[in-house]
Amino acid sequence: MSDRSGFFWQIQNGEVPTPEAVKTLCGRVVSVDPEAGTIETEFRAGLPFTNPAGKIQGGFLAAMLDDTMGPALAATLKAGEFAPTLSLNVNYLQPASVGLIRGVGRVVRRGGKVCHLSGELYQGENLVASGTAVALLRSS
Amino acid sequence: MSDRSGFFWQIQNGEVPTPEAVKTLCGRVVSVDPEAGTIETEFRAGLPFTNPAGKIQGGFLAAMLDDTMGPALAATLKAGEFAPTLSLNVNYLQPASVGLIRGVGRVVRRGGKVCHLSGELYQGENLVASGTAVALLRSS
Repeated sequence: MSDRSGFFWQIQNGEVPTPEAVKTLCGRVVSVDPEAGTIETEFRAGLPFTNPAGKIQGGFLAAMLDDTMGPALAATLKAGEFAPTLSLNVNYLQPASVGLIRGVGRVVRRGGKVCHLSGELYQGENLVASGTAVALLRSS
Repeated sequence: MSDRSGFFWQIQNGEVPTPEAVKTLCGRVVSVDPEAGTIETEFRAGLPFTNPAGKIQGGFLAAMLDDTMGPALAATLKAGEFAPTLSLNVNYLQPASVGLIRGVGRVVRRGGKVCHLSGELYQGENLVASGTAVALLRSS
């Protein structure tokens, strides 16, 4: 089993509080496989995230993707390591409505410093958004 | 003066309620110039947007950029027109903290259907994030 000393696992174990951004997004980790670098997440997209058309504003979907792809990598980090996102790219494929949104994310490549991530968001059977991110490994 | 019948102006005039996403981001339009295709915005990044490092989660900065670039274009739309975002790209340049964030956005090119947008977010003098977006003009 991989090293599970990092902050992701401290949050999962309840040793460190759930990040405020995750609480705001009503997010949770459904399953995670640090050896494979994959994760499944779930969010509850609420009325506070809606745009003038009553659909979920794209930025909040970006936030959900960030909180899917980031934790896929964070689950592989040791204590004292972190990995800020350098860039985030999101494609919007279909409008998302208030309700449950499922995320899947993966570490595409983990380099010595630079990590490439990707992920998708689903509402029901609909792929509503896909994204990629670049993160940089750092030690405190 | 340009046509000011679109939903952006209805919101500005109070005829249509402020979008929930804008309220959640504590956002407001500081100034807008639809002829130039430019906008200045302001957001109050609160504790609910923070990541495990206590900084503003990148996705919420993406949401602020979306609510800066989108309105720069929306201010140029007529009644019945809207412009969903197809893609959003964000670069994170410096960490942002809880507090005031200023946005600037612009329509880089407005085609017949496809519009290219760009924007930046500042905290104090620091450029914390920059972004681009592609939006598609549609009529209801």
